[in-house]
Amino acid sequence: MYPESIKNIIDCLKDLPGIGEKTAERLAFALIGFSKEKLTSFSDAIIAVRDKLTNCEICGNISEKNICNICEDKNRNSKIIFVVEKAKDIALFEKINIFNGKYHVLGGLISPLEGIGPEDINIDKLLTRIDSEGTEELVLALKPSIEGETTMQYIKKVLENKNIKITRIATGIPIGTDIEYIDSMTLEFAFEGRKDI
Amino acid sequence: MYPESIKNIIDCLKDLPGIGEKTAERLAFALIGFSKEKLTSFSDAIIAVRDKLTNCEICGNISEKNICNICEDKNRNSKIIFVVEKAKDIALFEKINIFNGKYHVLGGLISPLEGIGPEDINIDKLLTRIDSEGTEELVLALKPSIEGETTMQYIKKVLENKNIKITRIATGIPIGTDIEYIDSMTLEFAFEGRKDI
Repeated sequence: MYPESIKNIIDCLKDLPGIGEKTAERLAFALIGFSKEKLTSFSDAIIAVRDKLTNCEICGNISEKNICNICEDKNRNSKIIFVVEKAKDIALFEKINIFNGKYHVLGGLISPLEGIGPEDINIDKLLTRIDSEGTEELVLALKPSIEGETTMQYIKKVLENKNIKITRIATGIPIGTDIEYIDSMTLEFAFEGRKDI
Repeated sequence: MYPESIKNIIDCLKDLPGIGEKTAERLAFALIGFSKEKLTSFSDAIIAVRDKLTNCEICGNISEKNICNICEDKNRNSKIIFVVEKAKDIALFEKINIFNGKYHVLGGLISPLEGIGPEDINIDKLLTRIDSEGTEELVLALKPSIEGETTMQYIKKVLENKNIKITRIATGIPIGTDIEYIDSMTLEFAFEGRKDI
């Protein structure tokens, strides 16, 4: 019923996560109301995502250069590496501005159920980095899920003979959340991770 | 902190209605994960919105041709015109498939407060159509708001000397909505529009 061009843009928008038919229609009509200049910029921005972005050769971060800004930054402490699942996670930690080390993006988590093994994620390069960069601490900032735990245990195991401190970020109750909504496993972690006040 | 290409796509996405910073970031990273082919289609779809869409010369509907499919359709009853505010509204009525007449898009509503008068919306062309197409009924499918009511009253007034039936779609309580959430003006309309059961 819609003209082809409207159908196509609705279909493209529906490919985005969390965008259903109705939202896609609403966004499509918003786009139709955009100026020609704005539509050109939008299309150009998508083409730039297609053509300019690559993964940093060292850490796997998304970057416009072969080596990302963080890996290139000589002022950052290269002795400590934050291990994250996705490149987007780097942005989250960078925003809170508490960490001045380097990052390493695994690009996934080990999941025997889904057939994802250690060889399918970016672990080999992490091991090489640890040797070549003389890493002293590895902070595992992975999701506390079966896959996250499996991946953390795997990394701990392959590094057990190396003299390197391995930590994980705390699992517990998020600020502002009522304890009644917290699952029992998180409560257990929160109890084990209790601190003196 | 993000590379330029990520910043740009986030900015473009943020221009869409209901998309804030966080959602824009989430969508941008989803786009980064798209295949090159998908990104090309997406960009092409936006360019098609920019270059191919126009407004139907007769009714104002969004169309790829000068005359839209509905206006061109000889099987539709041209004696009855559904008057809507926005082109998107046509799609809503077409979906429920209850109406086989023609449409007319005003492209806005009269709003003295915002300085929008009858001359700023697509009413003149409606009057010409009524004469040339021999319209017998005008169904006003406008938002029941001050602007909608003003526009409906204006249309009624300019057509008072013509032999044409003017109706408006019912104002009342939407299906599934608890009456306690309904404003008093809607309740008044619902009462006035009561029907025998």
